[in-house]
Amino acid sequence: MGSSEKQHPQSQECFGWAARDSSGVLSPFKFSRRAIAEKDVKIKILYCGICHSDLHCVKNDWGGSIYPFLPGHEIVGIATEVGSKVEKFKAGDKVGVGCLVGSCGSCNDCTNNLENYCPKIIPTYNGVDRDGTITYGGYSDFIIVDQHFVFRYPENFPLDAGAPLFCAGITVYSPLKYYALDQPGMKLGVVGLGGLGHIAVKFAKAMGLEVTVISTSPNKKEEAIEHLGADAFLLSNDENAMKAATGTLDGIIDTVSAFHALLPLIGLLNSHGKLVLLGLPNKPLELPVFPLLMGRKMVAGSIIGGIKETQEMIDFAAKHNITADVEVVPIDYVNKAMERLARADVKYRFVIDIANTLAAGV
Amino acid sequence: MGSSEKQHPQSQECFGWAARDSSGVLSPFKFSRRAIAEKDVKIKILYCGICHSDLHCVKNDWGGSIYPFLPGHEIVGIATEVGSKVEKFKAGDKVGVGCLVGSCGSCNDCTNNLENYCPKIIPTYNGVDRDGTITYGGYSDFIIVDQHFVFRYPENFPLDAGAPLFCAGITVYSPLKYYALDQPGMKLGVVGLGGLGHIAVKFAKAMGLEVTVISTSPNKKEEAIEHLGADAFLLSNDENAMKAATGTLDGIIDTVSAFHALLPLIGLLNSHGKLVLLGLPNKPLELPVFPLLMGRKMVAGSIIGGIKETQEMIDFAAKHNITADVEVVPIDYVNKAMERLARADVKYRFVIDIANTLAAGV
Repeated sequence: MGSSEKQHPQSQECFGWAARDSSGVLSPFKFSRRAIAEKDVKIKILYCGICHSDLHCVKNDWGGSIYPFLPGHEIVGIATEVGSKVEKFKAGDKVGVGCLVGSCGSCNDCTNNLENYCPKIIPTYNGVDRDGTITYGGYSDFIIVDQHFVFRYPENFPLDAGAPLFCAGITVYSPLKYYALDQPGMKLGVVGLGGLGHIAVKFAKAMGLEVTVISTSPNKKEEAIEHLGADAFLLSNDENAMKAATGTLDGIIDTVSAFHALLPLIGLLNSHGKLVLLGLPNKPLELPVFPLLMGRKMVAGSIIGGIKETQEMIDFAAKHNITADVEVVPIDYVNKAMERLARADVKYRFVIDIANTLAAGV
Repeated sequence: MGSSEKQHPQSQECFGWAARDSSGVLSPFKFSRRAIAEKDVKIKILYCGICHSDLHCVKNDWGGSIYPFLPGHEIVGIATEVGSKVEKFKAGDKVGVGCLVGSCGSCNDCTNNLENYCPKIIPTYNGVDRDGTITYGGYSDFIIVDQHFVFRYPENFPLDAGAPLFCAGITVYSPLKYYALDQPGMKLGVVGLGGLGHIAVKFAKAMGLEVTVISTSPNKKEEAIEHLGADAFLLSNDENAMKAATGTLDGIIDTVSAFHALLPLIGLLNSHGKLVLLGLPNKPLELPVFPLLMGRKMVAGSIIGGIKETQEMIDFAAKHNITADVEVVPIDYVNKAMERLARADVKYRFVIDIANTLAAGV
C-alpha cells in the first residue's frame, strides 16, 4: 500500500495507482483530493484509457515528472456530487474528462476556446493546481474537476471504448478541423497505425475523406483496409510504391513519435499540402526546405484540443459510432499493459476498468 | 562576342549577356527568339533586376543550369508589337514580366490562378519552352512572352525601382496573403534584411502590421527602423533580447538562404504562429517538434506567386508607393554586381539599365 499524504485538510481520501519513481512501476497509492468547490464536479471514475503519454511520463522520458506520479487523462465516469454553482451537470450524469482540468480563463487562447494552448494550462496529471498541489489523474476511484473542463458524455455510447477519445480522439480530430483537412473527397494520409492512427482513420472516413494508411509494417495492410475501412495502404519502405504516390495527398496526419524522415512524406503531398505532426520525437527532425517552397507546403503541429471542440468531437464520434478499439484490463494489469504498450502490442488502446477492479486492489 | 545560334528560323536576332559555364561570368551573347505568335507580346526591355537566384543559377549552385545561361526575371519594358489575338496589351504599353512565361493552363493550380505551382511551369530562363528551346531571360534587349504572363505596369511608377517587385516583391507579398499574415495590427518578424527582407518590411507596413526586423547584424538596426520604417529590431544573437521577445509574433517571414536554426525563431512565435521560409538552404534545417506541437505552430514554404496575384501585388505597390531600394547599373557592370551581391554588398537590389547600356556593349 502506498503512502498517504494530506495536502487537502478539508478533503476526502482518494485511492489510485501511482508510480513512485522513474522506474515507472505503478502500485496502490492513497492520497487526498480537494473538497468540492462551488463550480466543481465530483466524478466516480468508471474507465480510464492508457495513453502513450502516460507511459512516457511515468518513466520521466520528457523530464519534469513529479513523483508520486498518478497518470490517466482519458476518463469516463458518473457525476456523483456537484458544487452549488454548477449548472452544466447534476449527480447521475455520465461525464468525461480529458487532458486538462484548468487554464487561466482570460488569455487570448482561453477566450477563443483554445484552453489547451493557454500558457497556464493545468494538466489532468503532473500539473500544479490552483492551490499549489500536484494534480493526479484518472487511475483512481474519483476525481474533482471544475465544470468547465468536464464533458457531457453522449447517451448510448460505450463507456469503455469512448474513453480514449478524450485524448487520442481530440488529438486527431482537432488538426483535421484546424488545418481544413475535413472536406469530403480530400485525400488524407495517416502515418502510423496505433492509438492515434486508428482513430484518425475512423474520423477521416466519417468526414468523407479518402484515406491512405502509411506504415512500415506490411502486416498492417489488411487491418487498415479490411478492419478500419481505409481506402489504400502504402508501405513506406517500398520505394516504387512511394514514388508512384508522389503528389497525391492533400494532407498527412503523422502520429509517429520516433525519429523519422519527413522528405518522403512531404513528397506524397500535392501542392499546398499539409503535414501535421502529432508525435513527439526526442530530437529534431530533418526539414528539407526545397520541396516545402516548391509546393507551398507546410509542416505543422497540433496538440489535443480546446474544451468546446472536445465536446464537439465526442458528439461527432457518438453520431458516427466512432470508438477506439480497446482492450479492457483490470487495474492490477496496468504494469503489464504498460510493458505491452511500449512494444506496440495492443490493438489499439488499453482501457482500465476502474469501477470494477480498483476497489479490489485495496 | 558570344556565339550565335539559330534555334528559331522564323525569328529575330536578339542580344544579351549570358554565362557560358559554371564560372558564372557573363559576356555578350547573340541568340534568337521565336517569331511573335498570335497571343504573344514583344517587349523592349528597359530594366531588369538582378535576383539572388540569378547568381545561384549562373554558377549552377542548385544543379540543372543549361549553358549558355541568360538570366533575368525582374523585367520592365515597353510592348512594341503584339500578336493578332492579344487583347490585354497594345504597342506602347508599359509592361512587366516575372519568373514565369508559361504553364500548362489546365491543371488544378493553373485553373486556380496558381500557375507558379504548375508542374509544367516554364521559367523565364533555363526553362524548356513549348517548342523545346531553352528560355532566355531579361538581360537582353527584348523578350517575347504569351500575354497571360505579361503584367500591366502601373502609371507613374518608377520603371527601375519597380522591376525587382516581379520576383522579390511577389515572393514576400504572396505568403503574407496566403498565410493570412496581412491583418492590420498583426505582429510580423522579418528575418534577414536583403533583397527580399527590405521589401517585406515595406509591404507589411503598408498592410498595417507591426514589424520587427530580426538580424545578426547590429548595424542594420538604424537602417531597419529609420529608413525602412520597421517598428522594432531584434538582434538574433542577443539571447536576452530574444528571450524577452518569446511568444510575441504572429508570423515570421524568413528570407535567409544559409543554414540556420529554426528553434529561436519558432520561440518568437505566439501560439498558432507561422514561420514562412523563403530562402533555399542547400541542406535540411533542424525542425524541433516539441514547440511546434505545444503552440500549434507551422513552418511553411512559399515561392513567388500566381499571375493574378502578381498583378494585384504591383498595383498594391504602386498605390502605396512601394518600390525596391535599387542601385541602377550598366550591363557591363553585371559581373561586378554579381560579386558584390554574393557578399551582400548592395542596398538592396541591383537593376540593370538595359535600354541605355545594352546596345552600347555590342
